[in-house]
Amino acid sequence: MSDAPLMVPRLIERKRDGGALGAEEWRALVDGYVADRVPDYQMAALAMAVFFKGLTEAELVALTAAMRESGDQFHLADLGRPRIDKHSIGGVGDKTSLLLAPMLAALDVAVPMISGRGLGHTGGTLDKLEAIPGFDTRLSLAEARRQLERIGGVMVGQTPELVPADRKLYALRDVTGTVESIPLISASIMSKKLAESLTGLVLDIKTGSGAFIQDPRQSLVLAETMIRLGEASGCRTIGLLTAMDRPLGVACGNAVEVAEAVLGLRGEGPPDLMEVTVALGAEMVIAAGLATDRSEARRLVEGTLRSGAALERFGAMIEAQRGDRRIIDDPSRLPTAPVKIDVHAAVAGVVASVEPRRIGHAIVVLGGGRSRADQAVDPAVGFWIPVKPGDRVAVGDRLATIAARDRSQVAAAERALREAIVVGAGANPLPLVSHRVTRTGVERIA
Amino acid sequence: MSDAPLMVPRLIERKRDGGALGAEEWRALVDGYVADRVPDYQMAALAMAVFFKGLTEAELVALTAAMRESGDQFHLADLGRPRIDKHSIGGVGDKTSLLLAPMLAALDVAVPMISGRGLGHTGGTLDKLEAIPGFDTRLSLAEARRQLERIGGVMVGQTPELVPADRKLYALRDVTGTVESIPLISASIMSKKLAESLTGLVLDIKTGSGAFIQDPRQSLVLAETMIRLGEASGCRTIGLLTAMDRPLGVACGNAVEVAEAVLGLRGEGPPDLMEVTVALGAEMVIAAGLATDRSEARRLVEGTLRSGAALERFGAMIEAQRGDRRIIDDPSRLPTAPVKIDVHAAVAGVVASVEPRRIGHAIVVLGGGRSRADQAVDPAVGFWIPVKPGDRVAVGDRLATIAARDRSQVAAAERALREAIVVGAGANPLPLVSHRVTRTGVERIA
Repeated sequence: MSDAPLMVPRLIERKRDGGALGAEEWRALVDGYVADRVPDYQMAALAMAVFFKGLTEAELVALTAAMRESGDQFHLADLGRPRIDKHSIGGVGDKTSLLLAPMLAALDVAVPMISGRGLGHTGGTLDKLEAIPGFDTRLSLAEARRQLERIGGVMVGQTPELVPADRKLYALRDVTGTVESIPLISASIMSKKLAESLTGLVLDIKTGSGAFIQDPRQSLVLAETMIRLGEASGCRTIGLLTAMDRPLGVACGNAVEVAEAVLGLRGEGPPDLMEVTVALGAEMVIAAGLATDRSEARRLVEGTLRSGAALERFGAMIEAQRGDRRIIDDPSRLPTAPVKIDVHAAVAGVVASVEPRRIGHAIVVLGGGRSRADQAVDPAVGFWIPVKPGDRVAVGDRLATIAARDRSQVAAAERALREAIVVGAGANPLPLVSHRVTRTGVERIA
Repeated sequence: MSDAPLMVPRLIERKRDGGALGAEEWRALVDGYVADRVPDYQMAALAMAVFFKGLTEAELVALTAAMRESGDQFHLADLGRPRIDKHSIGGVGDKTSLLLAPMLAALDVAVPMISGRGLGHTGGTLDKLEAIPGFDTRLSLAEARRQLERIGGVMVGQTPELVPADRKLYALRDVTGTVESIPLISASIMSKKLAESLTGLVLDIKTGSGAFIQDPRQSLVLAETMIRLGEASGCRTIGLLTAMDRPLGVACGNAVEVAEAVLGLRGEGPPDLMEVTVALGAEMVIAAGLATDRSEARRLVEGTLRSGAALERFGAMIEAQRGDRRIIDDPSRLPTAPVKIDVHAAVAGVVASVEPRRIGHAIVVLGGGRSRADQAVDPAVGFWIPVKPGDRVAVGDRLATIAARDRSQVAAAERALREAIVVGAGANPLPLVSHRVTRTGVERIA
């Protein structure tokens, strides 16, 4: 690529001026970037040009394929089973992955789940799993494959060899103001998911104030873009738009969410968590071809909870990944925070909002999340927030409980909670699951 | 600037979303960039955001000031003379600087001319000067000041200490597709010119197909932007729009242009070169306050040619900068190319175009220009093109002469010339000097 200094600026200019790059040009850019022949500064300028000018459908497919093929891939085509994953675009209190992987594995579906860490106000599945003592998310692809064959589910982090183009590009976008680009978000997510060799994928597209993208029309565009990308690679892709104008479930943090996931796997989780989990699980069952009818699909996934098969499978996964499987019977084996403080309603009324962004940032302040990618997280801290928008509360009712490392954190956490949980005269929460998006269109289901 | 990883992305996002940065934010960015605390990739993303969203007037003034003050400056306020420069936005065959510096110096105006090298299809004054045997363009600011006091004119290159922010940002823009931004071009030029401590500046805004900016409305916007920036710093700034739909003068190259400049200083240059030179020189005289009326100003500058004072001053400048001053009497002392080949008209008709861009690129192919900033140039090669659009030619008439290093270069050069010089049925050349732009508005003068 000795001609890179001449060629790349011309490609950037073409994109900047509204033109399209060819598939081979995208591949040369991605391969060159991974190999450090295309420098960060050119990729940053190109990303900003894409922010303004977008990508054509052909460019998006080409960029995603080039990223997907930039390193190792999960080769699972010979597994003899449907391979299904679920991906959520951010969220607070969202522990559905912890339930869905074992639930689908219990139905003999392979779930090769490669997850990320929390950043900003959103939590990450890896951080939650690592709250389980001993749990190892750093398996090699070969180890992960053996576990998939044996147990059906595996939950690991991205290895350096898997989609290195995305690792590098995401880190760059994060510091160059180029995160909020629908084509770049789509290519980032789908390059990783398609590297899992999936036959089907269910997208949990969060909407509302706490979502990564707050404009519901933009959320829909993102869903449709990712669905087209999935289907273009032969992966059946279905999206559900779900509410993120309040946290999902009661527990928000890492260990506290694992405990709530275990409760959910017993069929005893908070109603909103159970509803979203079953809705997503039913779509995974449909994507796997195990059912065509949604109520039949729901019965199948609910069956894994009732029978105890999903909980059992979760235990097997924890054990296989060197974690302490006894936490499924005794959640007190999870890390617990020494300080627990209740926050009570100061006025009577109707809960108007439980703002997920503020809750998420308050978790970061407690040490349970990160504002920079290189920070460690405290697994024990977090919140339980039993109230939901629309709930009526009296003065003195418990609004939330803070789980903190020490008392010095409590004042800031309580202040954040009081800003997040507003008691007023009424509420207008979003429907929990509002739309279903497939390649054929958008269906309102709320 | 330990908080840079957090702050800079927010600044990029604000610009990207159409907001404005404050003066202190621009200063922190520029200072941080020069000190390597703000990395290239963030500056590249910001430059691309500026390409799309522009800068407010206040931002442009703040960015220009921060760049101007990013290193050493020419402190000349105590010189006791008007300090005037001329700046041209690119061009082919444009040797006016070589004439104007000694012409104005002969009128006791200080001309602290800091010039650049050629890049792409445009030539650079430094490359032309260095075609003079021994000529040294690398003076320190202190040396340059002493020469200004003694002779009134100095022609040097940018030192590493002068406006380092522009050196770094320009090199970055060149490889990130962010050159063509009017605010960034304006800040780049004006930060350097204002660092010369000027009392007046004349801008030669090239228009037409060979200009850096080809849309005449955009050329006008650029002129107006730079004039506002100059006037905001107390520097009287006047722009002339001049034709660059054909090369200026006959000689195109380095040594050949020096020889033509010497001819011009004798009053014997090609008419178009003389006309543009006198027009620009008259504006420099007006900017210096030596005349208020344009015809009086023209008489003053023309007088320096007739009297021989300008040529004498050019000799003194060459001598002071360690060059061989005998070239002003004996141009054969300039480097000459061993191969000279005439190109003749193959058809009769009217010269429809002499395309400067193709001529400029053909000079690069001969080795007389550069496509990368680190290339050396051959001072001897180039073209003489005596025909102008509108000239009537017969079959066999000389269209041009090629000056080449060896015969292997001739075929490509002739091909380029035949593409550039089109003989057809008619021509519609731009007026040589079409508009005068000042802070009060645009005046048509053609």
